[in-house]
Amino acid sequence: MTANSLGTDGRRRMPTCKTLSSAAALTAFLATVSAADRAPGFTTADLRAADTLRERALSDSTAYQLVESLTTEVGPRPAGSAGDKAAVAWAVREMQRLGFSNVRTMEVTVPHWVRGEADFAVLAPWPQSMPTLALGGSVGTVPDGVQAEAVMVKDIAALAALTPESVRGRIVFFNNRMERTRDGMGYVRGVAIRAGGPPAAAALGAVGAVIRSVGTSTDRIAHTGAMRYPADIPRIPAVAISNPDADALERQFASGKTVRLRIRSSSRELPAERSANVIGEVPGADRGSEIVLLGAHLDSWDPGVGAIDDGAGVALMMGAARLIKEIGMKPRRTIRVVLFANEEFGTSGSRAYLAASEAELSRHVIGFEADFGAGPVWRLSSRVNPAQLTAVDQIARALAPLKLARGGNQATGGADLDGLVKLGMPLLSPDLDGTHYFDVHHTLNDTLAQVDPAALRQSLAAFTVSIWLAAQYPGEWQRLTAPVPPLR
Amino acid sequence: MTANSLGTDGRRRMPTCKTLSSAAALTAFLATVSAADRAPGFTTADLRAADTLRERALSDSTAYQLVESLTTEVGPRPAGSAGDKAAVAWAVREMQRLGFSNVRTMEVTVPHWVRGEADFAVLAPWPQSMPTLALGGSVGTVPDGVQAEAVMVKDIAALAALTPESVRGRIVFFNNRMERTRDGMGYVRGVAIRAGGPPAAAALGAVGAVIRSVGTSTDRIAHTGAMRYPADIPRIPAVAISNPDADALERQFASGKTVRLRIRSSSRELPAERSANVIGEVPGADRGSEIVLLGAHLDSWDPGVGAIDDGAGVALMMGAARLIKEIGMKPRRTIRVVLFANEEFGTSGSRAYLAASEAELSRHVIGFEADFGAGPVWRLSSRVNPAQLTAVDQIARALAPLKLARGGNQATGGADLDGLVKLGMPLLSPDLDGTHYFDVHHTLNDTLAQVDPAALRQSLAAFTVSIWLAAQYPGEWQRLTAPVPPLR
Repeated sequence: MTANSLGTDGRRRMPTCKTLSSAAALTAFLATVSAADRAPGFTTADLRAADTLRERALSDSTAYQLVESLTTEVGPRPAGSAGDKAAVAWAVREMQRLGFSNVRTMEVTVPHWVRGEADFAVLAPWPQSMPTLALGGSVGTVPDGVQAEAVMVKDIAALAALTPESVRGRIVFFNNRMERTRDGMGYVRGVAIRAGGPPAAAALGAVGAVIRSVGTSTDRIAHTGAMRYPADIPRIPAVAISNPDADALERQFASGKTVRLRIRSSSRELPAERSANVIGEVPGADRGSEIVLLGAHLDSWDPGVGAIDDGAGVALMMGAARLIKEIGMKPRRTIRVVLFANEEFGTSGSRAYLAASEAELSRHVIGFEADFGAGPVWRLSSRVNPAQLTAVDQIARALAPLKLARGGNQATGGADLDGLVKLGMPLLSPDLDGTHYFDVHHTLNDTLAQVDPAALRQSLAAFTVSIWLAAQYPGEWQRLTAPVPPLR
Repeated sequence: MTANSLGTDGRRRMPTCKTLSSAAALTAFLATVSAADRAPGFTTADLRAADTLRERALSDSTAYQLVESLTTEVGPRPAGSAGDKAAVAWAVREMQRLGFSNVRTMEVTVPHWVRGEADFAVLAPWPQSMPTLALGGSVGTVPDGVQAEAVMVKDIAALAALTPESVRGRIVFFNNRMERTRDGMGYVRGVAIRAGGPPAAAALGAVGAVIRSVGTSTDRIAHTGAMRYPADIPRIPAVAISNPDADALERQFASGKTVRLRIRSSSRELPAERSANVIGEVPGADRGSEIVLLGAHLDSWDPGVGAIDDGAGVALMMGAARLIKEIGMKPRRTIRVVLFANEEFGTSGSRAYLAASEAELSRHVIGFEADFGAGPVWRLSSRVNPAQLTAVDQIARALAPLKLARGGNQATGGADLDGLVKLGMPLLSPDLDGTHYFDVHHTLNDTLAQVDPAALRQSLAAFTVSIWLAAQYPGEWQRLTAPVPPLR
């Protein structure tokens, strides 16, 4: 894992595009825009099968059983852990049990960071200890911990406005509140502090960093998630505290008295470990060389059991492929489920997949990713050549009984498909409702209790119908080689 | 603290009644029933003042400021801890600042149990560790912990149906789900397992006990609370796990495989410590020798900061007395606020108060207790001589703008006033809504974030008006010396 590749969860750097030149891209793009009205329609048989799949999904318990099994029998599965290896074995076993074809693993080297114990205490003015979690990748401390006077800032910009003298030797408290949104934009806007705040503090001479959790819960449960150390900056310990504790710490600052904090952590990095992407397929018929890619990630953070992040995504993708496999019509295109290794701590799995699949990247004609909880799905978005928006409209009509909104054409997918999307793979995105996702995401509270079986079934229906019709689409899913203009 | 006195939170044993004989009680009771129609009415001035108090309370921030101050500047304050002593000092200071009269402490000897660290792990069939809390009073374990095969039962009755052979040498998992109710009856029905389950398991030879938390949250946060060891039973370690973890453990049992568990805990009992009840008054006028007693407790459990249990109660009682003090009319009766020491772990404070107040018990003419969260108040209940229900009706009318339900006449108060109530003191009970109380109660999640300022103000209004009119009641609050018949 390199520092470069480890950004926020949502957005990673764009890989080098090797497959198409810009000029060719523009030509292809312009050619297809004029074809908008000629997008071919789905066959009646395919639409009838979509109806059947939707109804079956709405009463199907496979997805719930899968997330129940994964969380109960494997539990936490951070990259490099024993749980990570157990999850790979679980996925192979379950894919075989469900009758997928070409079930295989693709070896992935993953980092192995171990949390250890952490504690966080306010020493002055009013001593209190607060539940904490080290940020993923954070260095540990000496056993007695780091103690220092603290300085509170809202965010990285506010830190940058301070003089180095007011930061040097101190612990910086980043006190930014994340906004609750349905589409996850609150997280996208807030998460930069987790990855970039501690190094920015270190660059000014701080000895430790504590952040208000990038989450929306008022529970006293801290969140975790990846951070990174640039090579040229001292590595300082970094932890998160919950929203109510951040409120309490803010009140201590509001007293005007000197605030002293202590961070203790025994987290450490061990040698890299082997993990694997787990792959299984439902082979296609006449367009079987074309791949409809279904992505989710098998790893989880360690405090919880990864029910919503991303056990639910794993279950949705496996559940959808299974329903399609059993509909009695071979799909035209091949449906490939990829359960990626280590999404959380550097997207090792998706980078390994990109590298190993270089020769067949152009065969990945459209992708789906489920990495945003257990539903319900509230909207259908896309990222397709505008010429093919009429196909998306047709898929939206097949989803009408699920009462979804119609989203735009700027879907971005999640972290694991990001590389493929950047290389031009179109996306269909049944958007999972993220309103409450960040109450639970990356916390010990990510358990099966957070999965609503009915919402999961509704999500399964939305994904299954979308995936089925994407596989049956009578036209070509054209690669995207230029920025996608706004919808209509 | 004796085992006898340490029951569930809600109900303690009845003290010996020394003040009235049964025959005298019955005579007095029969005499007052016939007086029902002659209950005197409140003066217009008193009712106008009640309206003023209600409106002032609805925009008064004193109660919120008090709970904010107590939770921020003192935080956790379990009996015997440094926080306990800090809370006593805080209460004296705040009562003096608010201008109460006769501010004083009453020394109380309290037990000093220290939690230490605890962890809980499923070792087989599928290893997982689960957040846990030792039950208050539980013994610790050797450093490696107690490991054993486990047996799951619903409750104490189900345990009693097992043979000793199937329990001996095992860890017993009590897996009873608490019911969510508005009036706390779900807790009253469920809490017996916490106090009595571990000893019942020990009596059959179990080596440890784990209970599903007596709480309603689906968060992965365990609860704590007092348990007791009878003298003649081996002391085994006892811990609680959260509802989602209990669900997960239940699924491990459902596999049919052997379940092995490990409990580790370093909790221990230290020598008894000194604490204090803190008392302050608003002196009464013509009936100043009569006491309207306002009770709440100053101690808290240690994982949280005691915002709803019982910072809110402390704040409501201090806030109500302050509003009445500042209304410009001296109350007829003396309003006495008692912030009791150590309600949570043996009600040491209320027992000390009873002992120290023996000579003036009959002067405690009516009581209020706030130990059920931060509101809103949804109902007005009582425990008065039926002859005086018309007075309660008049008080209910003064509360009409708050839209309360009218409760029955079987109010029981909380643990701290229980002894006085058993000795015949009437109660008025503005009932705090407990629907969500047990999501938070006795957990680390008991923070200021759980206090809704508007609900707290509404509760302050309900208490202040009720307390004021109780203090102004033109008749006599007659002691209860026989069971109270149902309302109407």
